Amino acid sequence: IHPVYANMERTVFDRMSSLAREHGAINLGQGFPDGPPPQELIEAAGRALRDRSNQYPPGAGLQELREAICGYYARRQGLTLAPEQAIVTSGATEALAAALFTLVSPGDEVILFQPAYDAYAPLVRRAGGAPVSIALSPPQFRYPAEALAAAVTPKTRVLVLNDPLNPAGTVASHEELAAIARTCAEHDLVAISDEVWEEVRFDGTAHRSLMTFPGMAERTVKIGSAGKIFGLTGWKIGWMIAEGLLATALSRAHQFLTFASAVPLQWAVAEGLSLPGAVLEGQRAGWGAGRERLKTGLAQAGFEVLPNAATWFLTVDLAASGIALPDRAFSERAVVEAGVATVPVSAFYQGENVPEHLVRLCFTKPDEVLDEAAGRLARFR
Amino acid sequence: IHPVYANMERTVFDRMSSLAREHGAINLGQGFPDGPPPQELIEAAGRALRDRSNQYPPGAGLQELREAICGYYARRQGLTLAPEQAIVTSGATEALAAALFTLVSPGDEVILFQPAYDAYAPLVRRAGGAPVSIALSPPQFRYPAEALAAAVTPKTRVLVLNDPLNPAGTVASHEELAAIARTCAEHDLVAISDEVWEEVRFDGTAHRSLMTFPGMAERTVKIGSAGKIFGLTGWKIGWMIAEGLLATALSRAHQFLTFASAVPLQWAVAEGLSLPGAVLEGQRAGWGAGRERLKTGLAQAGFEVLPNAATWFLTVDLAASGIALPDRAFSERAVVEAGVATVPVSAFYQGENVPEHLVRLCFTKPDEVLDEAAGRLARFR
Ligand SMILES: CSCCC(=O)C(=O)O
Ligand SMILES: CSCCC(=O)C(=O)O
Repeated sequence: IHPVYANMERTVFDRMSSLAREHGAINLGQGFPDGPPPQELIEAAGRALRDRSNQYPPGAGLQELREAICGYYARRQGLTLAPEQAIVTSGATEALAAALFTLVSPGDEVILFQPAYDAYAPLVRRAGGAPVSIALSPPQFRYPAEALAAAVTPKTRVLVLNDPLNPAGTVASHEELAAIARTCAEHDLVAISDEVWEEVRFDGTAHRSLMTFPGMAERTVKIGSAGKIFGLTGWKIGWMIAEGLLATALSRAHQFLTFASAVPLQWAVAEGLSLPGAVLEGQRAGWGAGRERLKTGLAQAGFEVLPNAATWFLTVDLAASGIALPDRAFSERAVVEAGVATVPVSAFYQGENVPEHLVRLCFTKPDEVLDEAAGRLARFR
Repeated sequence: IHPVYANMERTVFDRMSSLAREHGAINLGQGFPDGPPPQELIEAAGRALRDRSNQYPPGAGLQELREAICGYYARRQGLTLAPEQAIVTSGATEALAAALFTLVSPGDEVILFQPAYDAYAPLVRRAGGAPVSIALSPPQFRYPAEALAAAVTPKTRVLVLNDPLNPAGTVASHEELAAIARTCAEHDLVAISDEVWEEVRFDGTAHRSLMTFPGMAERTVKIGSAGKIFGLTGWKIGWMIAEGLLATALSRAHQFLTFASAVPLQWAVAEGLSLPGAVLEGQRAGWGAGRERLKTGLAQAGFEVLPNAATWFLTVDLAASGIALPDRAFSERAVVEAGVATVPVSAFYQGENVPEHLVRLCFTKPDEVLDEAAGRLARFR
């Protein structure tokens, strides 16, 4: 058994969901919306099952979906992409794996920012590389330019960015993105830009991809997720965007990871990406209302919530809320004793100086669920 | 770009399907059935989309599906499995990738039998291992006991078996499986047993898993595929079966490859695996009829077809049919000039002594399509 997987724990999201089921707890841990998904996509998937082929699509994705991805990014982010640049994957996790297996060779160093989605470091290691982590400090989670410059060595090949940032829900500033882009261009790094939260913003600002900064188009793998865009996390349709030979190599890695992704859901996502913007706006308005509701409920319960602008998550500062328990202990106890599952933010860190005073809560739930959760946490604290 | 992917070609299956689309050819290349899939599964998927959650299932698969897999193997193959032993993947390709990334460390040797599915060798290499290939000779494709014994070195860790065998459609004998099992047990190898064709047999004999041989239960990763069992290749639901710590490690590799697989299709496959055997028998009878039909058509067209017992494929011996063209040239020309896509069997080989006189044809198509294909090939040859 390869050392990366021997003694590895189950991912915290899956584990908290299991605990939530087991204890009948409200699940604000793993990120997913409870509400009804866009009915247009459900109906489109049903039609695809009945009326279209259920057999292998092209490995890199249905042409119709690849075109829809390009059209979507043209409208929403002003990107000009060709369908060959979009490679459909079995969720964004597969996109990350394919990108890292393509770009990391034994001995390479890969820059990660912490907090980091828990797949990054193990995938870098299994690809043969060494993760070099740069800490973003709460509560602002700004990108430290000096630490970034200091982290680059002659062995650095890849930088992984997650913007907007899970778990914090913060968004990199234009200046921060520009600085990261300059570092990549200067040191000839490829950026894996995990932008799965691009559509989930509440600050009224349009997402800007790292890919759009000078010199970045040819050195960026932009990762997107239909699961996040439409709130359909169980569909597992994602994609990678890249140029030229990089796109070709990525599609080769993909062909031997999952070959292709569920075809009826590809048809439905293609339709979904072509829906009028109002559908997405409506869905986001619902999520935004949940965000306000949980923020208010938590504040009333005496919890300090960190400022953020994006994702499905709020972060509670336990220490500032007068709670001395470390995050893991809080989460383990809250799911059993309060009946509310959360995610300890330290699960997004490896190594030393891990903050242990933050827990993450998912707010894409109906009002009554959020109210009940806040009430339970108020009684528990 | 990692050297494994740097100058890699697109997989032959995908390429031939593209050529078939481009030239309006009949596609007997990539393996998939044309006929209507079991309506029970289509309806179950539609119900799941509407009535069940479209959000993350547990990473290792819906409990209902894991139980259904166990029930299915108990009924069809007499296996006694616990749900924890079944890990759902995004198709059998992901299962292969997860198993190889789990079991192969840099420097390890992995025994493959050629012809081999084209994902095996690159995945072994990307995992850091060295493929050691043992040739099975056409037309019988028997497993050579001496060559197997000679191939094992102190570095050998894993053996990959594909039984029934794609592309040949042959089935290992009881003695061959026993010998492979003895080799694994003696040298402490783990077997990755790709049994995706287990349900697609036409010799009236039940499949027997390598896992059932003495000493193998604890050292086998058995791979299965709903796509093959139900003829729904575009659904991309597969699984790995293993025991104890091996199963745990595999589920960790899976959690960072795709995390989870499309949940509405998981519900449907769970229902499908619990259907009465008659549904599968009926489907297989249809496939068997196509098999006879294409065999007859090819024979009438003067093609020599190799004997086999399983899979969706027949193999034509070009040389014995009086055709001097090498297989790749035949396939490239046939798709354009005859309007029939096939797969050259040399695509399943690496290294030297590659047979170039065999092409593979998929017969799970309607009678009129098979007749037309045979007619076109008769005129073309
Ligand atoms: C793949 S489980 C994690 C889902 C997610 O993005 C989150 O909860 O952070
Ligand atoms: C993943 S494409 C290959 C499908 C298949 O099993 C075959 O055609 O051999």
